[in-house]
Amino acid sequence: MGFRLTPQENSFYDLFAKSASYLVDGSRELTTILGAPISEREAIAARMREIEHQADEATHEIIRKVNSSFITPFDREDIHGLAATLDDCMDLMDAAVDLIVLYRIGELPAGVSEQVEVLVRMSQLTADAMPRLRSMKDLSEYWIEINRLENQADQCYRRLLAELFNGESTDAITVMKHKEVIEELEAAADAFEQVAHKVESIAVKES
Amino acid sequence: MGFRLTPQENSFYDLFAKSASYLVDGSRELTTILGAPISEREAIAARMREIEHQADEATHEIIRKVNSSFITPFDREDIHGLAATLDDCMDLMDAAVDLIVLYRIGELPAGVSEQVEVLVRMSQLTADAMPRLRSMKDLSEYWIEINRLENQADQCYRRLLAELFNGESTDAITVMKHKEVIEELEAAADAFEQVAHKVESIAVKES
Amino acid sequence: MGFRLTPQENSFYDLFAKSASYLVDGSRELTTILGAPISEREAIAARMREIEHQADEATHEIIRKVNSSFITPFDREDIHGLAATLDDCMDLMDAAVDLIVLYRIGELPAGVSEQVEVLVRMSQLTADAMPRLRSMKDLSEYWIEINRLENQADQCYRRLLAELFNGESTDAITVMKHKEVIEELEAAADAFEQVAHKVESIAVKES
Repeated sequence: MGFRLTPQENSFYDLFAKSASYLVDGSRELTTILGAPISEREAIAARMREIEHQADEATHEIIRKVNSSFITPFDREDIHGLAATLDDCMDLMDAAVDLIVLYRIGELPAGVSEQVEVLVRMSQLTADAMPRLRSMKDLSEYWIEINRLENQADQCYRRLLAELFNGESTDAITVMKHKEVIEELEAAADAFEQVAHKVESIAVKES
Repeated sequence: MGFRLTPQENSFYDLFAKSASYLVDGSRELTTILGAPISEREAIAARMREIEHQADEATHEIIRKVNSSFITPFDREDIHGLAATLDDCMDLMDAAVDLIVLYRIGELPAGVSEQVEVLVRMSQLTADAMPRLRSMKDLSEYWIEINRLENQADQCYRRLLAELFNGESTDAITVMKHKEVIEELEAAADAFEQVAHKVESIAVKES
Repeated sequence: MGFRLTPQENSFYDLFAKSASYLVDGSRELTTILGAPISEREAIAARMREIEHQADEATHEIIRKVNSSFITPFDREDIHGLAATLDDCMDLMDAAVDLIVLYRIGELPAGVSEQVEVLVRMSQLTADAMPRLRSMKDLSEYWIEINRLENQADQCYRRLLAELFNGESTDAITVMKHKEVIEELEAAADAFEQVAHKVESIAVKES
C-alpha cells in the first residue's frame, strides 16, 4: 500500500477519473438527442463521437501505462479490466446515438428516456466513485446503488420489449430499429454494472 | 496438490457442484415451459427466476471466496472463469424462459424441444463432473461428450433457423420472436461447451 | 529474451503463423462465395468448414502447448488471448459463409464485397505479422494499418445498414437475413482489430 502515494500510482486514479468523466458527458448527449429535432441529431452525434474519441484516448493511455509500468496500484489484469469495461460503457452509449441517426428513427417509445435517465445517474455515480479507488473507502454504496439501478434498467428494458413486440405497430422494420436502440441502452446499463463488479472485486482484494 | 485436502479447498469444489446443480433445475423448468399451457408460464418463469437468483448467489460466494482466499485449489483466474461460465449457462436458459413469457410466444417450432433436451443432458453431465474436479479424474469423457452434444445442438440450431427463414411464416414479427428464443438456447449450449473448455484447461494444467 | 531461440518458443511463433494462414484461406472462400452461382455455394461452404476445422485444431494445439509448457515466449495469458482472437476471426468469417447458404440469400448489396475485400487484406497483414512476433520488430505498421482498415470497414458497415433500413426493400425477412451477414462481416473486422490490439500490447510489454 506504500506505493499508493507515489506520483505514478496516483496518475492511474486520475486516468480512471478522467475516463469516467467522459461517460457523464456522453450520457448527457444521449439525453439531448432524445429531445432534439431530427435536424439537430447529426450535430449531437458528432459531439458524441468526439467524446468517444477522447474516452478512447484515455483508455489507451491507461493500457500503455499499465504495460510499461513496473509498479501498479493494483493487479495489472484488474486495471486492464476496469479500463476496458469503462470503455464499453462509452461505446454502447455512442452506438445508441449512432443508430438513432443512422436509421433515421422517428419518435422513440417514451420508456426509452427512462432507460437514458438511469444511464445518466450511473455515469455520475461511476465518475464520483473513481477517485475513491485511491483510498478504497466508501465504495460499497456505489456498487450497491449501481446494482439497484441496473435492476431498474432491466425492468424498463423488458417492459419496452414487451410493448414493442405486442404493441400495435406491425411495421417489422420499425420494430427492428427501435429494438436495436433499446438493446444498446440496456447493454450500456449492463456495462456500468460490470464496472461496479470490477471495482468491488478490486476493493475486496485490496482490503 | 497437498492443498487439495484442506477444508478450504474442498469447499471450492462444493461451491462449483452447488452452482452446477442449479443448472439441472433450470433446464428442467425450460422443459416444463415448452409443454405448459400459456396460463402456467408466469409461474414457471417465476420459479426459473428464483433458481437463477440462487445460482447468482452461489457465483458471488465463489468470487468472494477466491478474492479473500490465500490459497486456492487452482489458479484464481481459472476459478473466476469457471464460475463466470457456469453463471452464463444459467443466465441464458433463464433469458429463454423470460422471452417466451415476455413475447407471449405461441407454439414454438418442434425442433426447439430438441435444443432443450440437449441442454438438460449438458446440465446433468456438468453437475456430475464438478465433484470430480477434486481428484481431476475421469473428466475427459465429460468434456468429450459435451463437445459432441454441442455439435448436435448446433446442427439443430441451424436447421431451425433455415426452417424459420425459409418457411411459410411470412409474419416477420413472429420470426423475430422465435429467432430470439432459438438463439438464447443455442447460446446456452455454447456456454456449456465453454464450461467444458475451462475444465479441460484446468485439468491439463493440474495434471 | 534468451529463451527466444529455444525450439520450444519458436514453435509458438510457427503455430501462430499457421493459425493466421488459415484466415487468408478463409477470406478467399468468402470472396469466392459472393461471386459464385447459388448452385456452388454448398461446396464453398464445405471448404470453408474444412478450413475452420484446421484453424480450430491449430488453436487447440496452442492452448495445449501453453498449458503444458514450463517456459513460454510471452505471458501465458497473452498467448491464450492471441490464439482466441485469431480463432474468433475465423469463426466469424465462417459464420458469414454459413448464413449465406443457410438463409438461401439471393443477391447481397454491392457494399458487402467491399467489406470482404477489407477482410482479405486484414487476413494477409495478420498472417504476415505473426512471424515478426519472434523479433518483435516492424509490428507497428501492421497494427496501424489494421486500425485504418477497421475504420474503413466500419464506415462501409454503417453505410450498408443505413441503405438496408432506409432502402426500398420493405421485405423485413430479407432485411433480417442481409443484416445478419453484414453484421458477421463487421464482427470479423472487429476481431482482426482485437488481434492487432493483442499484438500491440504484447509488443509493448516485451520491448
